[in-house]
Amino acid sequence: MSWIDEVKWDAQGLVPVIAQEAASNDVLMFAWMDREALLKTVESGRAVYFSRSRQKLWFKGEESGHVQLVHEVRLDCDNDVVLLKVTQQGHDPSIACHTGRHSCFFQLYRDGAWQSVEPVLKNPESIYSSANKP
Amino acid sequence: MSWIDEVKWDAQGLVPVIAQEAASNDVLMFAWMDREALLKTVESGRAVYFSRSRQKLWFKGEESGHVQLVHEVRLDCDNDVVLLKVTQQGHDPSIACHTGRHSCFFQLYRDGAWQSVEPVLKNPESIYSSANKP
Repeated sequence: MSWIDEVKWDAQGLVPVIAQEAASNDVLMFAWMDREALLKTVESGRAVYFSRSRQKLWFKGEESGHVQLVHEVRLDCDNDVVLLKVTQQGHDPSIACHTGRHSCFFQLYRDGAWQSVEPVLKNPESIYSSANKP
Repeated sequence: MSWIDEVKWDAQGLVPVIAQEAASNDVLMFAWMDREALLKTVESGRAVYFSRSRQKLWFKGEESGHVQLVHEVRLDCDNDVVLLKVTQQGHDPSIACHTGRHSCFFQLYRDGAWQSVEPVLKNPESIYSSANKP
């Protein structure tokens, strides 16, 4: 059986994907892949996800320039979750989140509320301006 | 609005959850929570998931003794994914995976195949023997 057929896709043909920064081990973001996205990720060495809201392939960084260079693709014990080890490119310090933050996981539970605990490194409006489009 | 109501549950009333080891930043496992599981996690300081296969709350470590002490609960930018920072208890070196490995993400893509690259630290049969049940 081919490696791609060993992946257990859900009812929508997707698997959850965790993107982890290789150098820091920080969890940067969470997204989804379909079969084509995973194939393209492995072939290109760049993270390609499946956008559920837009229902199409999402080449990470296609608008923002925040491309993810993929060092490792891992699969969990149940064959239904993927972990990528990446270098987050396009800005220093690295930005993975569309809000302009390093990581999407910037809301910390504290005293009965979610508190934003990570700084915005770049204005999201300038991230998605036409100047950054490839 | 209460913090718990800010979480965007999916059609099944669940959110994906990533468990990351606080000391090493290693991604240990991926699971799901419903509203009750997240409330119990925050209240108890121990990871409580929702088992989709058993359709009930899953107190991590209830059979294995591999309890997860929760240091941080984080929410992503879209309010629909949770990240836990945990100390994985019950064995040294730590075991989060039911296969007896440190992490569930032990299958690495290499040369067209998934290769197991992490050692089994404890025989799964002994992890789930009656001796380990609380």
